[in-house]
Amino acid sequence: MSAEEAVAPAVVADAAAPAPAEGAGKARTPKVKAPQVPKVNKMAPKANKKEAASTGAVQIGIEYKKDVDFPKWYQQVVTRSEMLEYYDVSGCYILRPWAYKIWQEIQQWFDSEIQELGVENSYFPMFVPAKNLEKEKDHVEGFAAEVAWVTKAGSSDLEEPLAVRPTSETVMYPYYAKWVRSHRDLPLRLNQWCNVVRWEFKNPQPFLRTREFLWQEGHTAFATKAEADTEVHQILELYRQVYEDLLAVPVIKGIKSEKEKFAGGLYTTTVEGYIPTTGRGIQAATSHSLPSGEARPACHAWQNSWGLTTRSLGVMIMVHGDDKGLVLPPRVAAVQVIVIPCGVNSKTSEEDKVAVDERVADIAKQLKKAGIRAKVDDRSTYSVGYKFNHWELRGVPVRLEVGPKDVKSNQALAARRDNGEKSTISHETLVKDVRTLLDTVQADMFTRAKEIRDANVIKVEDWKDFVPALDNKKFCLIPWCEEVACEEEIKEKSARTGLATEEAQDEKAPSMGAKSLCIPLEQPQDKPIVAGETKCASCGKDAKRWALFGRSY
Amino acid sequence: MSAEEAVAPAVVADAAAPAPAEGAGKARTPKVKAPQVPKVNKMAPKANKKEAASTGAVQIGIEYKKDVDFPKWYQQVVTRSEMLEYYDVSGCYILRPWAYKIWQEIQQWFDSEIQELGVENSYFPMFVPAKNLEKEKDHVEGFAAEVAWVTKAGSSDLEEPLAVRPTSETVMYPYYAKWVRSHRDLPLRLNQWCNVVRWEFKNPQPFLRTREFLWQEGHTAFATKAEADTEVHQILELYRQVYEDLLAVPVIKGIKSEKEKFAGGLYTTTVEGYIPTTGRGIQAATSHSLPSGEARPACHAWQNSWGLTTRSLGVMIMVHGDDKGLVLPPRVAAVQVIVIPCGVNSKTSEEDKVAVDERVADIAKQLKKAGIRAKVDDRSTYSVGYKFNHWELRGVPVRLEVGPKDVKSNQALAARRDNGEKSTISHETLVKDVRTLLDTVQADMFTRAKEIRDANVIKVEDWKDFVPALDNKKFCLIPWCEEVACEEEIKEKSARTGLATEEAQDEKAPSMGAKSLCIPLEQPQDKPIVAGETKCASCGKDAKRWALFGRSY
Repeated sequence: MSAEEAVAPAVVADAAAPAPAEGAGKARTPKVKAPQVPKVNKMAPKANKKEAASTGAVQIGIEYKKDVDFPKWYQQVVTRSEMLEYYDVSGCYILRPWAYKIWQEIQQWFDSEIQELGVENSYFPMFVPAKNLEKEKDHVEGFAAEVAWVTKAGSSDLEEPLAVRPTSETVMYPYYAKWVRSHRDLPLRLNQWCNVVRWEFKNPQPFLRTREFLWQEGHTAFATKAEADTEVHQILELYRQVYEDLLAVPVIKGIKSEKEKFAGGLYTTTVEGYIPTTGRGIQAATSHSLPSGEARPACHAWQNSWGLTTRSLGVMIMVHGDDKGLVLPPRVAAVQVIVIPCGVNSKTSEEDKVAVDERVADIAKQLKKAGIRAKVDDRSTYSVGYKFNHWELRGVPVRLEVGPKDVKSNQALAARRDNGEKSTISHETLVKDVRTLLDTVQADMFTRAKEIRDANVIKVEDWKDFVPALDNKKFCLIPWCEEVACEEEIKEKSARTGLATEEAQDEKAPSMGAKSLCIPLEQPQDKPIVAGETKCASCGKDAKRWALFGRSY
Repeated sequence: MSAEEAVAPAVVADAAAPAPAEGAGKARTPKVKAPQVPKVNKMAPKANKKEAASTGAVQIGIEYKKDVDFPKWYQQVVTRSEMLEYYDVSGCYILRPWAYKIWQEIQQWFDSEIQELGVENSYFPMFVPAKNLEKEKDHVEGFAAEVAWVTKAGSSDLEEPLAVRPTSETVMYPYYAKWVRSHRDLPLRLNQWCNVVRWEFKNPQPFLRTREFLWQEGHTAFATKAEADTEVHQILELYRQVYEDLLAVPVIKGIKSEKEKFAGGLYTTTVEGYIPTTGRGIQAATSHSLPSGEARPACHAWQNSWGLTTRSLGVMIMVHGDDKGLVLPPRVAAVQVIVIPCGVNSKTSEEDKVAVDERVADIAKQLKKAGIRAKVDDRSTYSVGYKFNHWELRGVPVRLEVGPKDVKSNQALAARRDNGEKSTISHETLVKDVRTLLDTVQADMFTRAKEIRDANVIKVEDWKDFVPALDNKKFCLIPWCEEVACEEEIKEKSARTGLATEEAQDEKAPSMGAKSLCIPLEQPQDKPIVAGETKCASCGKDAKRWALFGRSY
């Protein structure tokens, strides 16, 4: 529990409501009381209880509405759900267990997939000598302004400053050149899970834009371009699966424009997400093909690099969260099922209490044995209502309520976090039913997010519809010439005057210019581009492909 | 393959020996030929073959003998086995997949064990503002001289320098104080897997003393001292298991002396390893109990911290490696079984070739399916002898050789890396037999190392025997008064004049003074300390317990 929460005024509710109703399919309105604050705290539990009885309000975890004040909502959700804590150094954040566990789930899945492909893990030092960093001019230009420099050790100045890696190309590739002496040494496929630092001076934002973040970076070298190209797309597909299958976040696979591709790369593929509340796009993960340059292997080799960061957690929170807090997709949730004993009070018989305790323990045991991450909240110092709020705020996908009557009728009441639906689950078919329920929640969360996203991608063939669509929080899919100058012009034309810088953005009404997000791999089938006929929606030159434009993070 | 190796002169052997003999239990002397160097290399394969036929020497991976030049042996083993690569920044090293996989095996095992105990993973930022670092004076004194400082970002000077964490107490504890408002918030048990930096100016050494290294650091807070004490010892036991059960390295559990304990801690427990070749001790991992200080939780809490680093890999290499290179314990080896097709040459019938290929593939498939990390080396560009050397250098625990005759007699020849023993394995009982063999190798490696270690721990009750024992590469177990002044005197008395600094140490004949390594938890049963009677072997005061002294890393 966060300190903030422990001392928050206890706003309590429904004290006048009937005692918890138990039974099949029936919504419960349990008597909610404030947390019993320990003695060290000035508010005595009894006072709270009285306040509860008189105010009739429900204890609230998040004070801002997602649709009304998205930035404050986001900030409260990430901190009060205990995903993250703000840190003394601006732009750096503490990833608490509730967030880190999700990252670990992503790690485990992705790591096993890339090992199947033949990628091996390694660890390269985080310090880059200044001269090495400067070797790859093209590549470095994109990072130079954001590099953190170590210049001292103890009280001594270092002879040469050391950069903290913003990414590891300049750390790794000199050694690739050393290790790869002939095609016999190919492919060389390494990955590392590590921290990197990009000292951005823009407004930091938890998960999305942080000065230190965690990621995996894969760096591979192949004898043929065909092998390299294949890998670029295999990895992109894994990234799609991380988002869509694990995080239940729909993404669009595509190729970056020349302007937006990785500095110094041949081409960049990407998965792009959509944040409905702001209508902004977000680069979710990228997989690049690199040229065979000077600092690269002795023999000719085709190289790729690809990365996925903790930004993914922020995207998931923004897409799924609601006014009650986090909503976690079951596949990555630290706790998939929270089991809460209910309807036990001072009038409950000792026999019934024991029966509930035993049943709750048995449910957790059965679920855990089946590999479901279940947890019992049997804290005696908190009320049932407090517990409901506590786990809803944290986004646990399924809550199981078990009271004396449930034990007698051999069932439990299940409540879904994503849509609030309740159902009864027979104890006989517990594991099977819970598993099905979790799968359903996972699938429904994705379907819902995808329907919303799809409804917000619109084809724009006439420039006059472009900015209004953007202002209406849409992604614009346009027939495009793919020229850099045209992209720059689009950005300029679609920015509101005087508010064009990203810093000046208001989350509620973004006014920055639109970027090309990607050229989708899957082009619209209903309106194919006809060479020489279809024209660019912005400049009127010949269009090459449909491209996705949008305001973005 | 390292570049160094690829261009090393091909010294080749046994060309005059008979063609590979196949059959049960019979040692093979296969025709060894030089690696076929690709065209990019100046040495043509045919020339090598001729050289091979004329010289009659075995291709050598490691040029130094472990007992003759231990430092050079170690350096060659870690690099040529592809565990590690020296990096452009002194004291920083690249952990290549062969090493990283071992670290990952340790991670997976340890991580699942601590999660069982209720510890959760998290990630805290790596930067510490100067003022935070300086808050905990006691603790910081030990690290101040070794802290790397970030003073610039891009081209701007930072307002306040940021330390790169040497350890995370000063990063974490202010937030523990925030999160723990009452005993209801206890226990708080967090762990993180991360990199840390200690800019030591002593001679760096791969794995053992590096400026950046990987570790886990656990930081926990409990309501009662009893709970905290219990955890200290649970973790210490897990560390023992990492060393003894995973790495097959015997360690001695104990408590650190006042002089050697963690700066600012209540007490430190440790597992201590022994490097036979140098007779030096090495601190293998520590688990500390901390006092409840000012920067600590608001309510009274008992805190622990505990850490295990990539140093463990260096200890494993030093203990088990031999003149052929690495010897890896099966439980952590990236490849546990290397399967090599043998006895196939230009005279082999097409049918036999196919049979061998199929058998080799089937063996690998069966082993992998059973969870055994098996790999086939079917590279056609390398000779069988080259492959034997290649995998021996890398320490793969078991080699399976399969030739046409083996297929016909439905068996494979197994060779153990640890002691060279060979045996035949029936294809019918492949998985079971290989599993048994791997278990045997694991157990034998530990038993052998433990016998050697035990033979080198001797009880010393008379000071005159102390330095000669040290010089004879022993650990000295002495009845000890446990006083700091006495420990300092022992160190002084046991150092050879003029060579007392650690930097001046010659690995072959260490001459530094002895430190107390630990006060073993398991005290000698045959000679209990009698209060008021048993005297300290050094100063003659009353002895409290037996303490282990030795020269150390």
